[in-house]
Amino acid sequence: MTSTNTTLTEKSSNTPLDRLQKLMAEDLKSTNDLIIEQLQSDVSIIPKIGHYIIAAGGKRIRPLLTLASAKMFEGDMTKAHFLAAAVEFIHTATLLHDDVVDESEQRRGQLTSNLVFGNQASVLVGDFLFARSFELMVKTDSIQALKMLSNASATITEGEVKQLSTRREIDTSLQDYFEVINGKTAALFAAACSVGSIIADQDEKTQTAMYNYGQNLGMAFQIADDVLDYSANEQKLGKSIGDDFREGKMTLPAILAVKAADKEERLFWADVIENPEEIEPEDFPHAQNLMVRHGVYDQALKIAEEHSKRAMESISEIPTNPIKVTLEEILDYCVKRMY
Amino acid sequence: MTSTNTTLTEKSSNTPLDRLQKLMAEDLKSTNDLIIEQLQSDVSIIPKIGHYIIAAGGKRIRPLLTLASAKMFEGDMTKAHFLAAAVEFIHTATLLHDDVVDESEQRRGQLTSNLVFGNQASVLVGDFLFARSFELMVKTDSIQALKMLSNASATITEGEVKQLSTRREIDTSLQDYFEVINGKTAALFAAACSVGSIIADQDEKTQTAMYNYGQNLGMAFQIADDVLDYSANEQKLGKSIGDDFREGKMTLPAILAVKAADKEERLFWADVIENPEEIEPEDFPHAQNLMVRHGVYDQALKIAEEHSKRAMESISEIPTNPIKVTLEEILDYCVKRMY
Repeated sequence: MTSTNTTLTEKSSNTPLDRLQKLMAEDLKSTNDLIIEQLQSDVSIIPKIGHYIIAAGGKRIRPLLTLASAKMFEGDMTKAHFLAAAVEFIHTATLLHDDVVDESEQRRGQLTSNLVFGNQASVLVGDFLFARSFELMVKTDSIQALKMLSNASATITEGEVKQLSTRREIDTSLQDYFEVINGKTAALFAAACSVGSIIADQDEKTQTAMYNYGQNLGMAFQIADDVLDYSANEQKLGKSIGDDFREGKMTLPAILAVKAADKEERLFWADVIENPEEIEPEDFPHAQNLMVRHGVYDQALKIAEEHSKRAMESISEIPTNPIKVTLEEILDYCVKRMY
Repeated sequence: MTSTNTTLTEKSSNTPLDRLQKLMAEDLKSTNDLIIEQLQSDVSIIPKIGHYIIAAGGKRIRPLLTLASAKMFEGDMTKAHFLAAAVEFIHTATLLHDDVVDESEQRRGQLTSNLVFGNQASVLVGDFLFARSFELMVKTDSIQALKMLSNASATITEGEVKQLSTRREIDTSLQDYFEVINGKTAALFAAACSVGSIIADQDEKTQTAMYNYGQNLGMAFQIADDVLDYSANEQKLGKSIGDDFREGKMTLPAILAVKAADKEERLFWADVIENPEEIEPEDFPHAQNLMVRHGVYDQALKIAEEHSKRAMESISEIPTNPIKVTLEEILDYCVKRMY
């Protein structure tokens, strides 16, 4: 079944994510309208930066998960729109602050807002979006949804801080890495899925199932992203690769390559990880070669597949329906895009 | 009555704020314990920065207002501790981000955390405290308290962004200034007072009374702070003055002095406000002289007194009790410290 679907996907040249967007098109539109409305402020730089970063696009995968989850369980879709917008605001706030922290220059093919509007405004508008997200949640009257998303927000920041402390650290462990990506990605995926079931008044078992689905999807998604930043064909991926390498970020491929390194290779890794500003053009292809030699991509793929499998199992008892089928296909797509 | 109390205050050489701290000592201790507990995180830099900034002290006036309000209306004090800690976390998060935005070097007589730990960690730990504050609020099960504090949080960030855009702007209006200080100070004072009455299940009228008390107290408090940064005796105040002047901040005294300026004085103000980095040592005393000449402090005092009066009126229908009396005395103290 899964492989058939993948074949279908390829034939129609649209992804399961595209299909979920189509399934949820109306609600996604309402959510987008709400996002634009909620960016309003008398302080004009706020909607300006807000539009700059939110309108720049992105896949809207997190709000989409909230909408899909709420719809699947026949929840109140007005509340779902509030939560979906809140989830996107939290995500956008973290992007704004991340770019300040990372001193990034590009995001989604455009200059980062810290470059265009300055660090100061980026920090403050991030704070505004974060505050606004809680105002949106309050509108659902659901303490449980608020609890879920405030927990996720704290975990996100813990992940970001932890990521800061692992940068340029060659001895970053797999455990460290999993904590970082759980924070920076999986926690919000999990909460996004779970709050959809929460406002649809599902029992705890179902809420946990959706939480685990989102958590494992988020892990697989981030692992795939991190691998593609080394392994992808730039043209096929549609963006440049090697960013993590050039920033000395200890993502999964780097950790696995360091683990497998002989003495000489370790010297290379120590050099590029601890002094990324001195990286030469030939270092990245060399790093890629070492990864291929040690089967790093395959090892990473296996870990991602493990998460995908767990995600699949976690929703196995939810009765089948078109949304659920698409959620399953997304898992498969998420891993397959690594091949 | 009010003036008698002030005399008493001076005699016993403790302020009404000290007395409120004494009245609420037990609850303040519980709140402090909760704050320390909630700073915990496996990511060690989080409690480190948290302790650095929170343990540095500060007057704890915001959580004190929440505790006093809850106690006065016989609310559930366990919930009040959660809200008081949440209020202090919001305040601390904004301090951390402010210092990054302002590139400040000192706060409460110690180096700012952005200088000690870096901007990156300060931004992220601010985010953590903000997220944690919502986790604390959720524990009260009060959607209304969450609504109040999330609204306040959005207003705070709007005020901060607005402040950023008025800096070095000689034509900043009084209206701009009031919006800025409503955001940076009064909104959280108002919410802090109001949530105490909310979790004590008071009716809307009482909630509004407490909100208005806090809002006007916050305005008076900030105006006094802004005036003292020009008018105070440094030894008596216990900290250096002139910071706003040297940063080109358009606070009330500067706005009033610019309004009253003749042609020549306006050239002086334009010079120092638009190019604060070129300020000479003799410029500050000159600015102070101009303010005295035009009666700027008296005008500011009148505005602060107006807010104090409004705050007093707003709680006039609340039956008298020791806490209420102290809240009234705080208003008076807040304005009197400007003399």
